[in-house]
Amino acid sequence: MFILLSVFMTLPVVLLALAGEDVPNAVAFAESAGIVFALGAVGVLSMYRQPRDLKPRYMFVLTVSSWFIIALLSSIPFYLSDNGISAADAFFEGTSGITTTGATALSGLDDMDRDLLLWRSILQWIGGIGIIGMFVAVLPFLRVGGMRLFATESSEWTDKALPRMKTLSRGLLFVYVMFSVIAVVTYWLSGMSLFDAFNHGLTSISTGGFSTSDLSMGKFSDLILMEATLFMIIGSLPFFLFVRELHGQHGVLFRDQQVRLFLTILFTVPALLTLYRWWVSPIPFDPLHNYVATLFNVTSVVTTTGYASEDYAAWGPLAFVVFFFLMFVGGCSGSTSGGMKIFRFQLSLIILREQLMRLLHPRAVFTRNYNGRAVSDEIISSMIAYTFIFLLCLLIITVLLASLQLDFVTALSGALTSLTNVGPGLGDIIGPSGNFAPLPDAAKWILSVGMLMGRLEILSVVIVLSPGFWRG
Amino acid sequence: MFILLSVFMTLPVVLLALAGEDVPNAVAFAESAGIVFALGAVGVLSMYRQPRDLKPRYMFVLTVSSWFIIALLSSIPFYLSDNGISAADAFFEGTSGITTTGATALSGLDDMDRDLLLWRSILQWIGGIGIIGMFVAVLPFLRVGGMRLFATESSEWTDKALPRMKTLSRGLLFVYVMFSVIAVVTYWLSGMSLFDAFNHGLTSISTGGFSTSDLSMGKFSDLILMEATLFMIIGSLPFFLFVRELHGQHGVLFRDQQVRLFLTILFTVPALLTLYRWWVSPIPFDPLHNYVATLFNVTSVVTTTGYASEDYAAWGPLAFVVFFFLMFVGGCSGSTSGGMKIFRFQLSLIILREQLMRLLHPRAVFTRNYNGRAVSDEIISSMIAYTFIFLLCLLIITVLLASLQLDFVTALSGALTSLTNVGPGLGDIIGPSGNFAPLPDAAKWILSVGMLMGRLEILSVVIVLSPGFWRG
Repeated sequence: MFILLSVFMTLPVVLLALAGEDVPNAVAFAESAGIVFALGAVGVLSMYRQPRDLKPRYMFVLTVSSWFIIALLSSIPFYLSDNGISAADAFFEGTSGITTTGATALSGLDDMDRDLLLWRSILQWIGGIGIIGMFVAVLPFLRVGGMRLFATESSEWTDKALPRMKTLSRGLLFVYVMFSVIAVVTYWLSGMSLFDAFNHGLTSISTGGFSTSDLSMGKFSDLILMEATLFMIIGSLPFFLFVRELHGQHGVLFRDQQVRLFLTILFTVPALLTLYRWWVSPIPFDPLHNYVATLFNVTSVVTTTGYASEDYAAWGPLAFVVFFFLMFVGGCSGSTSGGMKIFRFQLSLIILREQLMRLLHPRAVFTRNYNGRAVSDEIISSMIAYTFIFLLCLLIITVLLASLQLDFVTALSGALTSLTNVGPGLGDIIGPSGNFAPLPDAAKWILSVGMLMGRLEILSVVIVLSPGFWRG
Repeated sequence: MFILLSVFMTLPVVLLALAGEDVPNAVAFAESAGIVFALGAVGVLSMYRQPRDLKPRYMFVLTVSSWFIIALLSSIPFYLSDNGISAADAFFEGTSGITTTGATALSGLDDMDRDLLLWRSILQWIGGIGIIGMFVAVLPFLRVGGMRLFATESSEWTDKALPRMKTLSRGLLFVYVMFSVIAVVTYWLSGMSLFDAFNHGLTSISTGGFSTSDLSMGKFSDLILMEATLFMIIGSLPFFLFVRELHGQHGVLFRDQQVRLFLTILFTVPALLTLYRWWVSPIPFDPLHNYVATLFNVTSVVTTTGYASEDYAAWGPLAFVVFFFLMFVGGCSGSTSGGMKIFRFQLSLIILREQLMRLLHPRAVFTRNYNGRAVSDEIISSMIAYTFIFLLCLLIITVLLASLQLDFVTALSGALTSLTNVGPGLGDIIGPSGNFAPLPDAAKWILSVGMLMGRLEILSVVIVLSPGFWRG
């Protein structure tokens, strides 16, 4: 992984050089790539022919530590770039990139060195395929947070399943690259510069949300906003279903219960919110343009991308509250998006309905089904453990941020946006029209850890930190 | 119940007349008592000798409808009092009283007719014993929200259990009256007027929180604040444990897991918060006075009483955030307090620990224990259903309030404070230094329903409203 990362680190330099542009931080990138490559080479030599131990304990340490270390390594170019980026800002930016969060501690993006902007986008693209891979290969195996629901034969890690896993991985990579290319080309044909199209293409499909301007996507046309909406939705759908569609299982995508609720939310909420904005608007209202903007910004938050085309927090109290709650939702499992994930809300609804029935018919027996599969008690309790630890982490991070004298809305929405990997928060400082630059360094470190925990479904991190883990 | 309520309605008049004071709204109270008595008489005559049906369905309707109707009836004196109290304000005040919430839509309390002030306090006192009775007699039987955990032989509603139930009820009433008398006398001896002592005595033990002044308890001495802290804590402990202590089972109170965590929170949080206030204080700091104030206000929120001695929301960002999260907590089950209740957090922690163990040891078998009793899967899933529906209602009420153009903090904290029966919210309008009077009428109706839902453990109301309930 380190060696792959070092190769990616040369990309911004190579691409800009190919385009005949200046590469202001060529030395920084070369140094960073060298460091990471060296670390990788040491790792390969020392691990070579070591037996691979696939016990849960080992997998947890490997998964968690590799995300934390890659976040750290990917921040080296920012730190070495000599643009006055502090260690806290560099780590925040690298973490926000690799976790596809999209919160930024850098301002003045429009005049920023283009190799750094490219690196930010490439990081999110890597992070996107990284989380898809982790979902398929690692999470169901680790039984984290109800993820066992998505276990297939290919996630059993047996010798028999290995060839299927390889086919699936190749399919996922193919779909991911294909959609990325389509996004870049579409943006380019719709009027973006090639540079903007390349960056936004990578950060749309990965639901990352880094942009090349302090205005985020505010300077682009309604057409581009609609295209971006589509690409963010694609990035939030379960990628293994795309692969199954390609292999001839037509219709699996739209028959999936996750996908159906996800699309229902995106059909109803922006429409209702547009009506509300119309109702409270003091000035003449352009329904079509405002519907496009509402759809775009709602999609951006629900898919945990984090683009903004305008300051949606200023659309009135109802919009503010709705955006706050939308930050919890997230996209589908198996996609590049974060959040609590649609399927967890659906499982909760299933339990709720079952419980209401049981209150009336205490002796009846109930069966639970999700996407045509039985839902075991084990999945339910692991889902609950996830929810509880999510809310507990939200509380702890909020309290920590508030102890740094951040106000209630900034602390609460900052904690939430980091754990769900959305990107922007709410309030005057970190809202859609602001950024994370003014926060104290301590807050940036805390939020970086929050982003990594959110990306790792929280429980994976908590278990590695728990005292029982290292005993015996 | 109606007839009992009509008797209580004459109390403010009788008490003030005995004290030789004016009774400005004697006619209003007489009319109200007459109406309620007439309704009760009609009820008794029509139900007389009807067979009592104790199926869950019937019990749900009876429980939910009686709380809603009593809230409505208890608001009649406010409405008839000719003080310009609107229907929305009267219902809000009556509901806030009977649910022991303590949020008030009335301002100018210091100059308010004393019979109305007395009625508010008496309402909370009735509400307090009402919820204790419901906890013992109804909730475990209905299996709502994990309450089955507290089921005893006497909550089985069999003929055999009836005498035990009667003994327990008498014990509970005795303890409740005893503590109320002690509170009134203690306040009086500590310098309150008899009127203030009587009112605050009733609203402390019932963790109600109505006061006789717009300053709440801000005008009383540190000694009285410490006494109030003690009485609020007593009101938040499981009353059936007091009865068992009286019957010779010494030590059951402090061996109870709920009680231990509850007291631990009240020992640690105010101490830490006082240190924080010391740290951020720009002016010389009186540690003892400020510790007393912090302890009092934290206790007031955790016990869901709702008194305030000063504007604790202005103690800095950390205090603001801490008070927000404390509003969720609530006291012990079986007490007069509201909130999500300590035992639900403990059960969640138990599941979380079990889940973490299971991630490491997938084949191990675990047993759950709470207070020395096994915790069944049924209790866990009903607790989860409660938590989920609680958060769902919080979302819905917040969105409804925001659609009335209330700001984020007011909408969110208002929804929360009504569902948990705390009383004051946060923010400029409904915070500890404000009240609910400036809110639009629609918001008051919504919040009143929220208070009743919170008091009824939410699920009871949802099930009566569910379509499946009325089918077949």
